[in-house]
Amino acid sequence: MKESPAISSSGKFFVEACFSPVLYQHKLLKNNFITVVVDILRASTSICAALDHGVKEIIPVAGVEEAREYKKKGYIVACERDGKILDFADIGNSPSDFLHSSFRYATIAYSTTNGTRTMQLASDADKIVIGSFSNLSSLADWLLKQHKNVVILCAAWKNLFNLEDSVYAGALADKLLAHPCFETVCDSAKASLDLWSIARNDLGEYLAKSSHRNRLKHLVSEEDFLYTITPDTSPVVPVLQNGKIVQADH
Amino acid sequence: MKESPAISSSGKFFVEACFSPVLYQHKLLKNNFITVVVDILRASTSICAALDHGVKEIIPVAGVEEAREYKKKGYIVACERDGKILDFADIGNSPSDFLHSSFRYATIAYSTTNGTRTMQLASDADKIVIGSFSNLSSLADWLLKQHKNVVILCAAWKNLFNLEDSVYAGALADKLLAHPCFETVCDSAKASLDLWSIARNDLGEYLAKSSHRNRLKHLVSEEDFLYTITPDTSPVVPVLQNGKIVQADH
Repeated sequence: MKESPAISSSGKFFVEACFSPVLYQHKLLKNNFITVVVDILRASTSICAALDHGVKEIIPVAGVEEAREYKKKGYIVACERDGKILDFADIGNSPSDFLHSSFRYATIAYSTTNGTRTMQLASDADKIVIGSFSNLSSLADWLLKQHKNVVILCAAWKNLFNLEDSVYAGALADKLLAHPCFETVCDSAKASLDLWSIARNDLGEYLAKSSHRNRLKHLVSEEDFLYTITPDTSPVVPVLQNGKIVQADH
Repeated sequence: MKESPAISSSGKFFVEACFSPVLYQHKLLKNNFITVVVDILRASTSICAALDHGVKEIIPVAGVEEAREYKKKGYIVACERDGKILDFADIGNSPSDFLHSSFRYATIAYSTTNGTRTMQLASDADKIVIGSFSNLSSLADWLLKQHKNVVILCAAWKNLFNLEDSVYAGALADKLLAHPCFETVCDSAKASLDLWSIARNDLGEYLAKSSHRNRLKHLVSEEDFLYTITPDTSPVVPVLQNGKIVQADH
């Protein structure tokens, strides 16, 4: 097949999945695509929660030192490492941390190593948006209107395939491929659909076997975990614009 | 979890899967492991067929020029690109190409870009063996006796996840994990088991949706394809020793 189609020969748009950032540069689609960045536990879920709550914009920041600089400049800063809010930061990584009433209309600098690096990597996309279970349907509806190919990029954990991001890729691909304007020729997307077909009946039970969930068990509360895997609690579509994540125009 | 366990805390050996060579350096296991190199369409299947037929040893060669040098030195050379046997080569990549009666006890230089590069990458393993559906059970039985962790490394296609290698990873993981001396904490291995659980009832039908199969449709005959997905036709365990692939001691 042609490796860089603007659109398929059947006039449809392609859906593709990348299970890890290191696979992204090898993707088939080279132009005319939107990249959906996914970090279910927990950056992409927290970003959706924040914008849904009325946060004006989020500045993604990779490192702790950069986050500290933002704090010095007067920004509200979200920064957590190994489950602990860093001393200079206002809040951590939990979706609920972003729901404080004073954060409405605010700008928050959010230190997420995985998420920020993944967004930087996706700079070849026409647009970068944030996907989570919480905005699953609203993001799918928005993507339908864009008339672009879609690459679902899992932030993964230390570049390793992880189940929760990959199953989400299947959930989103399933929503998109339910519409006749999308198709897929991508084995990763097909595999993610299969994983989703097994996981969808009891996502919590399915992801209980995820290594990342187990690794984070002492860091992520059961309440947070259940929130990250609950679909359609939020209508937001976070989009990266000029280095800031804002609510997309509908 | 500890990232570099020699053995799990429960005294079991780990099974891990890598869906692409670019994921290999990020694997959890850093020592005391055997790497199973998998390139179902078609290098690993052809290597098993050759050794099963009585070929003494196979020298994996990456590039065409290196293969040409081997031909000049008098070796039998297997070299194919885009479905055509190169003019200087004796045979191509099909498993059946390796079954000529004159190849018994012979050494064959086999040019397979993906396979050779993947074996080079796996040089950090204690041993490198070759896995295919054709030696599925015999390889699993052999691995059981080694008392080592196992990493199943998919050669993939252009570093992209592919269904046939990943489903094979699930088939082999399933065989190993049926024994109480193995366990897994690896999300890739868990996902591969799920894919195998869906694919196993009709592997041909399942892999008909594989992009690699479709890409190779004009290159790989239906007969070859069916052979590559048929389990347990061969008792061989090909192992890389001093740059040559030979039958392992049982």
